[in-house]
Amino acid sequence: MKLRCSQKNLASSINIVQKAVSMKTTLPILKGILFETCGQTLKLVGTDLEIGVEHHINAEVLSQGAVVISSRLLGDIIRKLPEADVEIEVDALNNMTIRCENSEFTLVGQPAIEFPELPLVEEDHAYEIPQDLLKNMIRQTVFATALDETRPILTGVLMEMQEGVINMVALDGYRLSLRQGNIKTSYSNRAVVPGKTLNEIYRILSEGEDGKVEISFTDKHVLFQTASTKIISRLLEGEFINYRQIIPKEFKSRVKVKTKDLLDSIERASLLAREGKNNLIKFSIKDEFMTITSNAEIGRVFENLRIELEGDDIDIGFNSKYFLDALKILDSEEIYLNFTTNVSPCIVKPTDTNNYTYLVLPVRLAG
Amino acid sequence: MKLRCSQKNLASSINIVQKAVSMKTTLPILKGILFETCGQTLKLVGTDLEIGVEHHINAEVLSQGAVVISSRLLGDIIRKLPEADVEIEVDALNNMTIRCENSEFTLVGQPAIEFPELPLVEEDHAYEIPQDLLKNMIRQTVFATALDETRPILTGVLMEMQEGVINMVALDGYRLSLRQGNIKTSYSNRAVVPGKTLNEIYRILSEGEDGKVEISFTDKHVLFQTASTKIISRLLEGEFINYRQIIPKEFKSRVKVKTKDLLDSIERASLLAREGKNNLIKFSIKDEFMTITSNAEIGRVFENLRIELEGDDIDIGFNSKYFLDALKILDSEEIYLNFTTNVSPCIVKPTDTNNYTYLVLPVRLAG
Repeated sequence: MKLRCSQKNLASSINIVQKAVSMKTTLPILKGILFETCGQTLKLVGTDLEIGVEHHINAEVLSQGAVVISSRLLGDIIRKLPEADVEIEVDALNNMTIRCENSEFTLVGQPAIEFPELPLVEEDHAYEIPQDLLKNMIRQTVFATALDETRPILTGVLMEMQEGVINMVALDGYRLSLRQGNIKTSYSNRAVVPGKTLNEIYRILSEGEDGKVEISFTDKHVLFQTASTKIISRLLEGEFINYRQIIPKEFKSRVKVKTKDLLDSIERASLLAREGKNNLIKFSIKDEFMTITSNAEIGRVFENLRIELEGDDIDIGFNSKYFLDALKILDSEEIYLNFTTNVSPCIVKPTDTNNYTYLVLPVRLAG
Repeated sequence: MKLRCSQKNLASSINIVQKAVSMKTTLPILKGILFETCGQTLKLVGTDLEIGVEHHINAEVLSQGAVVISSRLLGDIIRKLPEADVEIEVDALNNMTIRCENSEFTLVGQPAIEFPELPLVEEDHAYEIPQDLLKNMIRQTVFATALDETRPILTGVLMEMQEGVINMVALDGYRLSLRQGNIKTSYSNRAVVPGKTLNEIYRILSEGEDGKVEISFTDKHVLFQTASTKIISRLLEGEFINYRQIIPKEFKSRVKVKTKDLLDSIERASLLAREGKNNLIKFSIKDEFMTITSNAEIGRVFENLRIELEGDDIDIGFNSKYFLDALKILDSEEIYLNFTTNVSPCIVKPTDTNNYTYLVLPVRLAG
């Protein structure tokens, strides 16, 4: 194997496939990146057996071949090389020599044959989605997945495709985040994609590729594919909660408030809420004002916000974290907060679009 | 106590005095910041008994007083307030009420009388030094102090003032860093200032104040004073090593090399050096070239640099860390490396100024 490519392309490619490489693995070969020539392109692959990432770059391939090289060391080396052409040569004993201007590295590699193959996902029934939309949908849902593994299905995001619409839903028992988007499709499908996979996809898409993503499913796997990158992940098994029946349709109070003002106030109130138990903050909504209060042994806080209220006054308590998470990912200037009673869920919605719904359960107030 | 001041000034003042506040202290009062009015200024003080920082801001003082308030909580609150006027009121029970636009916080404080007084340092014999020069001198020396406490005196930087010259020197048994500067003074003095103090001073000066610093000493303490800030620290006790006799005056080989090229090459070589023992890198200097090599089980590296050599060829080994530290703080485009034998120290000097000297001991090469 012998090839030449640009340091910049190689460094960025390693960056991408490294997102699937885990340093904690007990299988030494998985700490490596597979290098494999395919005609005049170089394919790099990293995997932790849960997620696999495959990325292609242009290269001047002088002789074909494949090898597995330590991901961490190789990444550090390529990043430190000058922006110039890099020459890579692998001998029969899997030793890789890297030459770039005045530097020459020789690294001991492993046989490519020992590297696991990524699962095969056919691309016949692919859903096509713009990258920006997919990134936004991930950002607005994945934060609401459960972090603990007691109910594994809740660590994933449900993706539901039907009649030109894609829904992504995450919930963790305390809150639910639902984002709707439009896609071109005639196939229906639903699958639960691990939150970790979506986080990695978000980071890979943020590396700067534009364009569209094609998403394909098998029973057990999902494939996300851009022009130069394939991300393959296992799906979560099990039945996702019927989320539609959780979301109330009617309300007794509707508050309209500026997103940024509410975020700032809750951030300040949470400084005291974190000193006590439960991150408890209390909303008191009455006429044109909403006050947010929190008490701790070391002090108390009182925030006063101007709002527009339709319906009844209400006093209700929340874990400030669950509100902050949602307020940080909402893009609209103003939002609605919909309440029924102080023991039933609050629904947060942007005022300028109907594509997002957040549900958060209240904390029962003493007395 | 009652006053009004700007959120921005208050936040930046808290930021400065917090650098002296340790969260690890066993004395609860030291987790607080002293607030004290002095006429139409507000004085803030933080200390961990080793370092004390006092900072003054303008305030509209309506009634005088003093109190101690939790540093962490107060800092977090003030930083989160909007850029507007902040009203602070303290009652007889040391409760502080903070009002700013639509926010009101009440925090439980402690009596100011319990806060330790900072040591008194007279300012009669002050040395005056431009802030930029002091920052540079700190940056170019403090990294070479010892990190372990087995010889406490080596955790500090020697400051030597004599006849218009100030020398700052740090050494840790493996390398030595000496920076010389010019100051106006007719007093001679020498004292060893803890590295930690100098790091905090560097960070405080980087907060953006311009102008000069006045430095005053007592037997046990040093005072650094700018227009609005006083930093008082204890000095280290004990005799500093006679560093002048360590620095060789004559050499057998002198290498001239581009600082950035050498830094880049050693950074790359150190990627393999860190895989082995001792971070060992080897220089082979011959005619117009210097090669840098390092070997580890996983691979090897070979870097080739063009140099100008006067004198003998030499092969010599170093711990790459000690070279990198110095190359990162050198501002000149080219440097000299001066060698005698491969078991005697190497001296690094900028080519464009005589105010900096770095000494580093070699690692004995096997064979």
